[in-house]
This record gives sequence, C-alpha cells and structure tokens, in this order.
Amino acid sequence: MPTLLLDKKKCLRNMERMAGKAAEKGLSFRPHFKTHQSAEIGSWFRAYGVSSITVSSFRMAAYFIRSGWKDILVAFPFNPHDLARLNALSGAARISILLDHPAALPFLERLDHPVDFYVDADTGYGRTGIKAEDMEGIENLLNASHSVKKLHFRGFYCHAGHSYKSADPGIKNRIHQKARQDLANLKKQFSSYDPLALYGDTPNCSIQENFNGIDEITPGNFVFFDLMQLALGSCTPDDIAVAMSCSVTGKYHDPRRMLIHGGAVHFSKESMVLNGQVVFGQVAGADDKNGRVEKGWDLLQDGPFLTGISQEHGILEKCERIDDRTGIGDLLNILPVHSCLTANLMKEYRTLEGDLIQTLNGCF
Amino acid sequence: MPTLLLDKKKCLRNMERMAGKAAEKGLSFRPHFKTHQSAEIGSWFRAYGVSSITVSSFRMAAYFIRSGWKDILVAFPFNPHDLARLNALSGAARISILLDHPAALPFLERLDHPVDFYVDADTGYGRTGIKAEDMEGIENLLNASHSVKKLHFRGFYCHAGHSYKSADPGIKNRIHQKARQDLANLKKQFSSYDPLALYGDTPNCSIQENFNGIDEITPGNFVFFDLMQLALGSCTPDDIAVAMSCSVTGKYHDPRRMLIHGGAVHFSKESMVLNGQVVFGQVAGADDKNGRVEKGWDLLQDGPFLTGISQEHGILEKCERIDDRTGIGDLLNILPVHSCLTANLMKEYRTLEGDLIQTLNGCF
Repeated sequence: MPTLLLDKKKCLRNMERMAGKAAEKGLSFRPHFKTHQSAEIGSWFRAYGVSSITVSSFRMAAYFIRSGWKDILVAFPFNPHDLARLNALSGAARISILLDHPAALPFLERLDHPVDFYVDADTGYGRTGIKAEDMEGIENLLNASHSVKKLHFRGFYCHAGHSYKSADPGIKNRIHQKARQDLANLKKQFSSYDPLALYGDTPNCSIQENFNGIDEITPGNFVFFDLMQLALGSCTPDDIAVAMSCSVTGKYHDPRRMLIHGGAVHFSKESMVLNGQVVFGQVAGADDKNGRVEKGWDLLQDGPFLTGISQEHGILEKCERIDDRTGIGDLLNILPVHSCLTANLMKEYRTLEGDLIQTLNGCF
Repeated sequence: MPTLLLDKKKCLRNMERMAGKAAEKGLSFRPHFKTHQSAEIGSWFRAYGVSSITVSSFRMAAYFIRSGWKDILVAFPFNPHDLARLNALSGAARISILLDHPAALPFLERLDHPVDFYVDADTGYGRTGIKAEDMEGIENLLNASHSVKKLHFRGFYCHAGHSYKSADPGIKNRIHQKARQDLANLKKQFSSYDPLALYGDTPNCSIQENFNGIDEITPGNFVFFDLMQLALGSCTPDDIAVAMSCSVTGKYHDPRRMLIHGGAVHFSKESMVLNGQVVFGQVAGADDKNGRVEKGWDLLQDGPFLTGISQEHGILEKCERIDDRTGIGDLLNILPVHSCLTANLMKEYRTLEGDLIQTLNGCF
C-alpha cells in the first residue's frame, strides 16, 4: 500500500513562516484546515498563536470542534441543506459562513444561535461571490440580512484563486493588487459596518508583501505545499512536506518505464504540465531499502515523472536515470501535484519518525 | 453533503446483461469489483451465477473474503510488499496474482499456501505486462516460475485499456481483434500448460461480439457505467446507474453559472471533453423538491455541464435552460465522468428507495 509520508520539521517550519509573516504584516491568521484535515496537525498551529480556523464543509467543522477549536469559518457559500448542522455546531463554537446571494437568507431565519457571515467577494476569479464592483448587489444582500435575527455581518472574504493560473510575476501581482484594492474599496464603502477583509490563498500569501487593507489571511496549502505550488513559485523544493512512498512493481523497456502501486485513488487525478508533458507526480528520491526515508526528499531530481495513472496503477516514464539502482520492491518517494486532494484520499500520514497521524477521513 | 445515488434496477440490469452475454459466448465471468467496492452490491452478482471475482488490491481482496468470496484474482503485477497479506489471505481463499517480470519470483519463495498466477500480457495498451509477441520473455518467466513451490501458472491476462482512448468503431475493433489474436497465439504457443485467456475491460466486453479464443471476462465499470462509457458507446444514457445528488448553493450571471456543493473530493478530478469543453460531470435532472428522485435520470439533457471543480466547489456553466426552475437549495442529479473514482471517494451509496449501501472505504 502506498504511504503518505510527512516531514514534520518542514511542516512546522511552513507553519512558523506563515504565522511569522502574518504577525510581521499585522494580519490575523486563520489557516484553512481543508489541506491536512487532521486534528493532530491542526493542533501544531496552536504553538504559533492560532485560535481561529477555516474549513470547507460542516463535516470538517464538526471534526475540528471535537478537537477543541472554537472559532471556525466554513468558507463555502451557505448550503441550505446544512442548516441542521449549522444549528448543531453554532451552540458549541463561533461559526462563520459565507453568503453571496439573498436567496440563502430565508433558510437562515431558523438559526438557533448567533452566526457571523462574510460576503464572498469576487475580485476576478469567477468561481463564487458577488462581483466586488457590484456595490448595489452587496448593499441589497446586507440590507436583506438585517431582517434575519442571529445573523451578523462581519466583513468580506476573497479567494483570489486565479493566482493558481499563472506563474508570471506580473500577472500574479496584478491579481493581488486588484483584490487588495477591491477589498479596500469595500471596507470604505461599507465602513459603517466596520467590516473585516479576509483574504488569502497560498500563492498570494506566500509571494506577496503588501497586505495593506487586509485584516486576516486564510491560506491552507502552505502547510504541505506540492508540485503545483513549486511551479507557481510559492515555495522551494525543500519546503514540500509530504511525499508518497510507493513500491516499484514493474520495470519495462521500449519505452523505459516503471510501474508503481500508486494511482488515482492515492494521488488523485490532479495533473499539471511539467517539461511539456502532463504529470501526476515527480520522483524525489528513494528510501534506504529498509523502509525508512534516508534524507527526506530535499533534492528534486529532474524527473522521472508520474505520467500515467489509473485506479491503482502509476506509470513512471523516462526512468533511465534511476533504472540501474531501482529494483522491483524498492520504495520511491513521489511528490504530489496537489497535496490537498492527495491527503484527502490517503486519510492518514506517517511521519519520518514513523508515527501515524490520523485525519477526518480515517477509519480507526 | 453530496449523495451518490444508485438506481438498483439499472445496476441489476447491467449485471444481468453482462452475465447473459458471457453465458451466450461460452465465457466464464469474473467481474472486477474495484468499481463498486461494496459487499452488498457484490452479493447481487451471486444471482447471476458469479463465484469468482477480480479486485485491484489485497485490501479489497481481504474485504471481499470477509463477505464470503472464495476465488479472487488480484489483477495487479505482484507487489513484494504484499507478501504477508498474500500469505494471510491465500489460506482462506483461492488467490490469483499477475506476474510480468521474473524479478518478482524470489519474493514468492516464501508463499505459505498455493497461489495461482496469470502472465500479464500487453497487447498494445503499454501500461503493464510482457509484450504479447515476446514469446521468449514469457517462456523465461514461466521457466523461472517452476522453481517456486506453491506458485502455479494458470494462463494469460490482458487488459486492453487502450479501448478507452477512442470512440471510433474501426480503431476499437482493431484493438480487440489484436488482443484476441494475441491471446489465441499465446494459448497455442504455451498449449502444454493448457492456459486460460482472461480478458476484458468494459468497452470491449460491452461492444464486441467475437470472443473466440478467450475463456473468461473480467470487466468492472459496466455495473454502473458513466459519461466516459457513454461517449465510448459502451452503454446508453439509460444504463448509467449512479448519479451524484448535489445542492445548488449559488447562482451567478455574466456568465450564467451555478455553484453546487460537489467537488474534486466527491467526483474526482477525472475529466473528459464533451461539446468541445473539459467537463467533470453532466446534469441529468433534478429531484422532486422533497429530496426524492422523481424519475431517476433516464433522459440526459444537452448539459448543463460541470466545467470546474475545486476541493468542495463545483461550477455548472451554461445554466440558461435550468435557471428559471432551479433555486438555491435545490438538488440536481449529476452523472460522473468516471464512476469507479467517484464511488471510491463517496464511500457509500443511497438507493432510489432510500437504502444506504456501504463500501470498503466507509467508516461504520
């Protein structure tokens, strides 16, 4: 079985750096826990002063409340089918939700406890949210929300996810500056509410330096990083804190390739283009032949790449460089393209020290 | 939370048809259980005379042994790290494995119980296996296997997965005829072993009619089908037996789209090109506004399509046709691109009658 290895030292360093950057910029820090989905990894954030978190579902919110978190933003436009869950949880913790449409308000008339909300503001990503320029739309939503007892407007939330679409610094800067300016405009326009501005995907929070006008950042992926973040310039190879340990189970020629046990049910089918080809992962070293990771995976090689995956099968191409020293049964460490989806599928981590770390999805 | 709905009648009809086709062609039928991964759904096959099954991991083999299956092919080139699992299971059931390299044999010297193996023959897919024309390579593997006590050669296994790469009938026929001819050649070349020929992905087993030279078929996906199989011509819209019920949680204009709660952790990131765009699913009707599915999802509309997914978010584009009658909180039924990966992520099914069906991955 493939094993998702976690380098705890790198993970803690990633946490420390992001918490330090938030403190340096005078920002609150509400990390997104959808990446690791683990009570134990989440608890490591407390050493860096974190007391409020972000999640992407009520299932996750319930899990983290059970491990003691008391201030949770469910960063998803409110789904009316979650009303019972919201009522169950909002008695035990301070729960915030996102809204981007007045049609969700009638469902919230049945709130049992006070709930905060943020307006999801779209600064150009185009996934969810009210367009940040649509002052009338936002005002209508805020006005309509006044009639809903127990629902309290706290500010604006922006996920500028189009930061994932380009590694070009000029494009990334324009995306960030527009989001920052949009949030500043909204804070000014609706200053009578004294609203907060919440912001932050991992690329912008890792790369950008000017956070004027922003109050709180909510990145998630930075806790592990991955090949996609590396390509975007959010991290160095040495910052990537998870790798999949997979057994080589086949070696082939013409073309030269290897089969690993590690497929779409382990890595996910998230792909990216590297060196002109679609890849699902990249080899970053082998273990020491005793099932232990010798040196972690500090040094990225220029491949081989995981270029094909089906349900349980993974195919590594261009294996010439590792062919001589890699036999059937050897374990390779493979960096994932998207650590959030990989962690969600794997359900548990094994640290380099050999400790097992559980998640929301594990069955224990 | 998204719910994976199962139309049990369609599922049983799919089973009955494939079992009937196997019987008509004089083939044994060893369905692949990696698609549904469910003891209950697996048990439905018994009514169609099935007593031997295929799985893709030892974890799956252990699960199905617990529900009484006694003849299981683990259709993956043997991973030496699975030796302890193989020894644990082969005392309780007849276990078969795949081999495609003599380097795996030394690990099998430590078998505790008899184990059958099939040679994985590559007829052109290029994923795993010894090339079917490489008689010398196969002979070397068979000769080397003789020294491994308790290991018994039973025949050849071919997964002609390149059948998924084209909907063109001519190309599909050539892939099938080559595989069939290759298997016939292998049976002749190695006739002293009286080997079986195992074959079968869902496209070939659904579409083809000439199975001369093949002894046993091992398709899996046909139990549910999906949008990919529909595009390949393996099924009709009416045969697709699973759909994801997702709540609409946002409606947007410019461009007109909807947000659903349903993303990569529900559907997987498997995509395909339909109508010139990359899609992750397709809307196939709504529920009756009481949480029940009115008529299943017999009639496919020409969209809207699920064109963007992130971890929990799904974006439906071109929603003009359903916009008037679809509000926030309404449930839509969405057909998945790849039902195997969707079922793996969802971990359970709800039948149209409201029964919950568990899988290997569920936590109960």
